[in-house]
Amino acid sequence: MAEKIALIGGTGPQGKGLALRLAQAGFDILVGSRSAERAREKAAEMNARIGGGSIAGSGNADVVAEAEFVLLTVPFENAATTLEGLRGQFRKGQVFVDVTVPLSFDKGQVNPAAPPEGSGSLQLRKILPPDIPFTGAFKTLPAHLLEEIETPLECDTFVYGDDKEARQRVSSMIRKVPGLRPIDVGGLSAAAIIEGMTALAIRINRRYKSREARFRILGIDPWPQK
Amino acid sequence: MAEKIALIGGTGPQGKGLALRLAQAGFDILVGSRSAERAREKAAEMNARIGGGSIAGSGNADVVAEAEFVLLTVPFENAATTLEGLRGQFRKGQVFVDVTVPLSFDKGQVNPAAPPEGSGSLQLRKILPPDIPFTGAFKTLPAHLLEEIETPLECDTFVYGDDKEARQRVSSMIRKVPGLRPIDVGGLSAAAIIEGMTALAIRINRRYKSREARFRILGIDPWPQK
Repeated sequence: MAEKIALIGGTGPQGKGLALRLAQAGFDILVGSRSAERAREKAAEMNARIGGGSIAGSGNADVVAEAEFVLLTVPFENAATTLEGLRGQFRKGQVFVDVTVPLSFDKGQVNPAAPPEGSGSLQLRKILPPDIPFTGAFKTLPAHLLEEIETPLECDTFVYGDDKEARQRVSSMIRKVPGLRPIDVGGLSAAAIIEGMTALAIRINRRYKSREARFRILGIDPWPQK
Repeated sequence: MAEKIALIGGTGPQGKGLALRLAQAGFDILVGSRSAERAREKAAEMNARIGGGSIAGSGNADVVAEAEFVLLTVPFENAATTLEGLRGQFRKGQVFVDVTVPLSFDKGQVNPAAPPEGSGSLQLRKILPPDIPFTGAFKTLPAHLLEEIETPLECDTFVYGDDKEARQRVSSMIRKVPGLRPIDVGGLSAAAIIEGMTALAIRINRRYKSREARFRILGIDPWPQK
């Protein structure tokens, strides 16, 4: 049986792109939304898009309860409130993956807008039940490109979290997505760096008139990693 | 006549690698050190290494006074004090390039260790005379690889600063180094992000047993940029 991945707020641009790519990689996808009806509609559209049937939609609380991996893909402004409302739904054995990024758009310069904890992830870690391992991943991938499923990603994504086994599980999951390589960057203190790199990618997009700026690490294993 | 590039603290690993690569790119290099004698010795060694004569050594104050570009390549711990001692040597028309990065190595996790200003560059900007444009570049390049001049870099380096013309001048300088592409990431507020990426590269090096982790941006102009 395929592993299940839930996407809280999976009807937004980032969630949709990830749902499509992860479904194509062979996972069962549970797209969550505040409105179960909207989630079902979007799931049907996504299945049609990839000619499959492995994407289902439901309310956020329902999808969290059922999945091995739970990805948070709401806008950061709603992240804390959304997670607070769902914290009772998690169960031991699941891995949480934060995909949200706090950003500010002041004076034409995009910057990370970390809460007092130092990063978005450090704030959300306080809300998630302590026995659920907290990881961050997919943060620097352009939503626009994720949705363009005909275009290979051919880039890296950075995985962090204090629980090593959880990082390994998330990395294995990512490795199944063609053209995407996980880079394990260690503990949760990396979150501020990675969230900064999301801001950097947007800066680069604006300056170079692209929507697809993303990262590749050179100097480690040959690419792609097996 | 070739443009002159001064490297304050250019006898350290980062400075040496940059001196070699920039000399090979056709610039006249002035390697500075607290000891003029040490600088001259190191300059002679570097000239021998590349079979050239365009690298000269002298005291830090002397090299600053003479160059179009002034790169600060001391360890961050000495950056503020060194720059304070040299601020009287700058003259209008020069461009300052900060290459230093504040890092902490706590509990086996490398992280940026920004001063209260928010980044190393923001602290140093307060020390440099206000009429000298302040930029940052070369921060994420591995010192080890810079010195291995037989190996092409084949990566990007991020250029920031509030003065657009200065960023362009630094980018043009970088473009002359084979295999190195400048990415203009806008204003000085990017410094914290880029300094974080230095920490990230070191994290990746440790985890993947490399000394050469570095960045390439995908999704903008084809590489290398002309």
